[in-house]
Amino acid sequence: MRDNRATHAIRPLTLQRSFTKHALGSVLIAYGDTKVLCTACIEEKVPPFMRGLQKGWLTAEYSLLPGATHTRSSREAAKGKQTGRTQEIQRLIGRSLRSILDFSALGERTIQIDADVLQADGGTRTAAITGSMVALHDAVSVLLHNGMIQTNPIKEWLAAVSVGICDQQVRCDLDYDEDVQASVDMNLVMTESGRFIEIQGTAEGDPFDSHQLQELLRVGREGIIDILGIVKAQLG
Amino acid sequence: MRDNRATHAIRPLTLQRSFTKHALGSVLIAYGDTKVLCTACIEEKVPPFMRGLQKGWLTAEYSLLPGATHTRSSREAAKGKQTGRTQEIQRLIGRSLRSILDFSALGERTIQIDADVLQADGGTRTAAITGSMVALHDAVSVLLHNGMIQTNPIKEWLAAVSVGICDQQVRCDLDYDEDVQASVDMNLVMTESGRFIEIQGTAEGDPFDSHQLQELLRVGREGIIDILGIVKAQLG
Amino acid sequence: MRDNRATHAIRPLTLQRSFTKHALGSVLIAYGDTKVLCTACIEEKVPPFMRGLQKGWLTAEYSLLPGATHTRSSREAAKGKQTGRTQEIQRLIGRSLRSILDFSALGERTIQIDADVLQADGGTRTAAITGSMVALHDAVSVLLHNGMIQTNPIKEWLAAVSVGICDQQVRCDLDYDEDVQASVDMNLVMTESGRFIEIQGTAEGDPFDSHQLQELLRVGREGIIDILGIVKAQLG
Amino acid sequence: MRDNRATHAIRPLTLQRSFTKHALGSVLIAYGDTKVLCTACIEEKVPPFMRGLQKGWLTAEYSLLPGATHTRSSREAAKGKQTGRTQEIQRLIGRSLRSILDFSALGERTIQIDADVLQADGGTRTAAITGSMVALHDAVSVLLHNGMIQTNPIKEWLAAVSVGICDQQVRCDLDYDEDVQASVDMNLVMTESGRFIEIQGTAEGDPFDSHQLQELLRVGREGIIDILGIVKAQLG
Amino acid sequence: MRDNRATHAIRPLTLQRSFTKHALGSVLIAYGDTKVLCTACIEEKVPPFMRGLQKGWLTAEYSLLPGATHTRSSREAAKGKQTGRTQEIQRLIGRSLRSILDFSALGERTIQIDADVLQADGGTRTAAITGSMVALHDAVSVLLHNGMIQTNPIKEWLAAVSVGICDQQVRCDLDYDEDVQASVDMNLVMTESGRFIEIQGTAEGDPFDSHQLQELLRVGREGIIDILGIVKAQLG
Amino acid sequence: MRDNRATHAIRPLTLQRSFTKHALGSVLIAYGDTKVLCTACIEEKVPPFMRGLQKGWLTAEYSLLPGATHTRSSREAAKGKQTGRTQEIQRLIGRSLRSILDFSALGERTIQIDADVLQADGGTRTAAITGSMVALHDAVSVLLHNGMIQTNPIKEWLAAVSVGICDQQVRCDLDYDEDVQASVDMNLVMTESGRFIEIQGTAEGDPFDSHQLQELLRVGREGIIDILGIVKAQLG
Repeated sequence: MRDNRATHAIRPLTLQRSFTKHALGSVLIAYGDTKVLCTACIEEKVPPFMRGLQKGWLTAEYSLLPGATHTRSSREAAKGKQTGRTQEIQRLIGRSLRSILDFSALGERTIQIDADVLQADGGTRTAAITGSMVALHDAVSVLLHNGMIQTNPIKEWLAAVSVGICDQQVRCDLDYDEDVQASVDMNLVMTESGRFIEIQGTAEGDPFDSHQLQELLRVGREGIIDILGIVKAQLG
Repeated sequence: MRDNRATHAIRPLTLQRSFTKHALGSVLIAYGDTKVLCTACIEEKVPPFMRGLQKGWLTAEYSLLPGATHTRSSREAAKGKQTGRTQEIQRLIGRSLRSILDFSALGERTIQIDADVLQADGGTRTAAITGSMVALHDAVSVLLHNGMIQTNPIKEWLAAVSVGICDQQVRCDLDYDEDVQASVDMNLVMTESGRFIEIQGTAEGDPFDSHQLQELLRVGREGIIDILGIVKAQLG
Repeated sequence: MRDNRATHAIRPLTLQRSFTKHALGSVLIAYGDTKVLCTACIEEKVPPFMRGLQKGWLTAEYSLLPGATHTRSSREAAKGKQTGRTQEIQRLIGRSLRSILDFSALGERTIQIDADVLQADGGTRTAAITGSMVALHDAVSVLLHNGMIQTNPIKEWLAAVSVGICDQQVRCDLDYDEDVQASVDMNLVMTESGRFIEIQGTAEGDPFDSHQLQELLRVGREGIIDILGIVKAQLG
Repeated sequence: MRDNRATHAIRPLTLQRSFTKHALGSVLIAYGDTKVLCTACIEEKVPPFMRGLQKGWLTAEYSLLPGATHTRSSREAAKGKQTGRTQEIQRLIGRSLRSILDFSALGERTIQIDADVLQADGGTRTAAITGSMVALHDAVSVLLHNGMIQTNPIKEWLAAVSVGICDQQVRCDLDYDEDVQASVDMNLVMTESGRFIEIQGTAEGDPFDSHQLQELLRVGREGIIDILGIVKAQLG
Repeated sequence: MRDNRATHAIRPLTLQRSFTKHALGSVLIAYGDTKVLCTACIEEKVPPFMRGLQKGWLTAEYSLLPGATHTRSSREAAKGKQTGRTQEIQRLIGRSLRSILDFSALGERTIQIDADVLQADGGTRTAAITGSMVALHDAVSVLLHNGMIQTNPIKEWLAAVSVGICDQQVRCDLDYDEDVQASVDMNLVMTESGRFIEIQGTAEGDPFDSHQLQELLRVGREGIIDILGIVKAQLG
Repeated sequence: MRDNRATHAIRPLTLQRSFTKHALGSVLIAYGDTKVLCTACIEEKVPPFMRGLQKGWLTAEYSLLPGATHTRSSREAAKGKQTGRTQEIQRLIGRSLRSILDFSALGERTIQIDADVLQADGGTRTAAITGSMVALHDAVSVLLHNGMIQTNPIKEWLAAVSVGICDQQVRCDLDYDEDVQASVDMNLVMTESGRFIEIQGTAEGDPFDSHQLQELLRVGREGIIDILGIVKAQLG
């Protein structure tokens, strides 16, 4: 294996909290060489379809900085539109985080998550989800500390990881080189309690059978347990 | 159950082939009250990144006609951009169909799939995938008949279905009312040989556990077997 | 003549009412091989410039499904803008239908017409106008039946037809092959009472003289009388 | 009548040729208080669909300067798209001028017409067509003079005028106040030889009958004869 | 020197006030062969960020008519976006004019400046600023005359000019040919009292030193004094 | 002074080179609390207008990450267009860096600069210019090292700084709080040899006189000397 980690092991995971100073939560997360800056800001209003319901909301946006990839990616703002891939990823981040929030406890405000990839090496969407979870936690802590909310709206922690099959072997937290050669690519978002929030599996080459699916799920679950362990340890 | 079908049963499925005359394949598929017009056209060139490789390609586009939904949807062409949902769905359709094609057998030409929903009642993306499979088959048959290609590029048939959990019960091929109240929403794309091409499961409310996941997969697999049986019977 | 109809005759015209279930009016109209799905939806508000006037409004949108034409047309939603031709046609549909409505009788609500061409073979805009008239009638009938309005806002019926000059002969309701070779192309929108709502005549090749104009108007008027006869007969 | 001209008379018409110096043809035309700057530029290539045919092409673009109207109009470039009205008008200008050109005589080059309304007071599209005809003539004269082309590609002159019905009376070349109250609005483009290139008539209020149509055509034809007389006299 | 004016002299400057009739201020300004139509319109509201402050606002938009340049420029409205150059210029015009206005004296209304270049020959942005100053003055005079405002909100007059270095010589109010060969291009906006509002200097070729900078500033200041003298003389 | 630095002193400046791994040059620059990630990538082709000239080119793009500002900024990619401010800044970065490059020495390739602001506290454009200079230097070093180019295309180093007048005092390298209250805002780009590449001075409140201008230039020049000293020292 390219980086000598064990077959099912995740890559080294690090967090730099308060990486920037303006957003309430700001985390630079690294899954190996993938580095994503995740921020959580608060806006004191909700989208039109949520008004008057006494509940909060969460939205997420994602981008890849042009210089973050091996070959420079073109800038979406310059082209004037986001790619389908970007939209798919930011919808996934938002949906995942909304599923573990109790919006009644948040009041009529919106949490705005931004996940900007500074360096890409596979698994940007899963790193973005885990990093945004931490930024969300940090922002919520400020709201609780300032008395803006009384109850913690986070019902449960979540984390995300990718799993795949390379050369017939199931791998966890694939880097770019592994991802490119994988015949199956799956992203899992799970809670601390071991339940699923999202499963997105795609056969890049040949379809996969039930046995392979079970193995992917098993390895992914272990990866997420490892990730949540590291994250929680860092939060003290 | 609202329409009196058995708990795990799919809705009535019908196909009208050659629904329009210009596209090589043109199928109006109905999954219950969901009706999608799927066409397959051929363009005698490939996208820039495929040029010179002696291989073909397949792209897919999806839309919801404004009058197809209970409350009129706004027209994407008038707003000047496709929603994230539309892009997500058309990427799924394209990825699924590409996975069962042998592009070497197709030559340097592109199959263009269009899936336009005339009436929506839940499951538009799964109906679009199955209907597009039939339109693809019909277009390929013309190419074979005309001698434009010698070998059938279709490696295997596929079909798609949605499964979900409503009131603690697993349901298959959910209509709109079921979909709205489902706590888990999963779309499956599988081959004739019972292997997975795509699994996309989302917890709309509470996360789901492994036991529920296994049940969803089992019911979905049966639904797809039923669908492929009906489709193949109609093709004679 | 290609399809053996008499020189001044219109093509076979059929209507399928209630073609889809969500829109209040939903009609699949065929002028020969041209098939247009016309729906009429109601929105309980009016555009900003009409607010507070106690009057209703009608807007119309038009599109050509990509697979509807001999060679696939590109999808406007994917390109991010509507063509000038599309805008011209949808403005014509809206203007025509607005001219036969008494908006005071409608109240502050908007009728939204959508005309989506499923199969194109010449005359899509005229089929769209006639089909939308029927969808409008059906939607208004529901409003009257439900007691949402007391007075029928439709002042008079209208229909539309194309006329042209091919090989020095005036033809009515041209199909695509006739349309391509026509030296003059004219679209007429007329009322039951034989009065004009729109005349749009264009010399595609040589300009046309007054004599030719009179002949075009005469033949078009007869075509519209035939169309209204068929439509009214179907409505019973 | 507001400006004391006779019922069927056109407004004072003036031309300032060579109004700007860079375009080959540049004309400021006034129909009463409507002032349009029309330029004709030459590009030494044709659009993709015309390449290799040894023929030329003509395109036209139109705009209303924001300060040209009584209440300021918003700038299309700032909004990021042209209105349907603008597209309709520029398509009309282009189609009209193309109909009187022999593109074989022009060679593989494109004439680019720009009609920018500096001051609007009704009839901007008809003034734009007549003014663009003069700019086209002036540009073609330069090409002939420079020996870039040998034969004059202009087959025949054309001009355009609006007619309408105000208070039951047919009027010609309506100003803004007349246009607003007109129940019928018709634009005519005709050749020197008295033949029609375009007829676009719209019932703004009540539909119009055949008798009214004939009267509109008669008055419009006289207006165009007057316009062509004035224009030709100025060209000497 | 190409047009025989003295080295530091500005080009002939002319103004045609009330060039069009609808805008409250409408000025055709010429700096040599550069001709810009500047209009000032009033809207009885302010942008959202200014609401309720009892103050006015001023915005500016700029464009180059396609036929205004030696080789035709493409139309921004047709391309669907304004270039960076256009945005830079219109931001400069707005910022300059806002700096000499007392918005409290204007009340909650917006002055909308439009500067449309009819003919370009260098210095379009400086001519646009000076011309817009006159249009602003004329619009304000109408507001004062009509009693809509009591106090003149114009605190001081301003004007703008370009300076540059061609063949080691400092030149003022460069035409297009001079501008193309200049190694430094600087635009100055100054008040009557000789103070700076904007300095924008760019080394097109080699960087410039302090001595050259001082010379550019000195010559520019003299140019602006000349321009203000001519403008004020014309206003009487 | 808010952060206790001397009146004319710049803020602490730090550089982290090779901040990311894919771009040839990648620098995280800090001017106080303003942090900008500047990358330089190489593309082996030039824009159409430069083809065949045996010369290189440089382009620059700029953005503000949404979470970088005190109140979250909206994401340009999501809105579908870049603001005028963004375009102005990226044009300035590109123009400045192009002025110190000998494009003949670069060959037909394009250097793509991306400056993405991770944290904003005033002076983002000047930090972006200086940081991009370092990233450019690092990318060029790789090209030289790999033998892709023989001669260093960098003719001279440059740096940028802002100066302004707050409470009648000239300040250098203003942070956000200083910037907001400054009555004059000026950005200077200068070379090692003390010559000007860009001067952009704007009166935010009152216009400024010649005396103030001279003082701003003097203080800015000293700031740039300090910045170049620190940068060069770090490069060793």
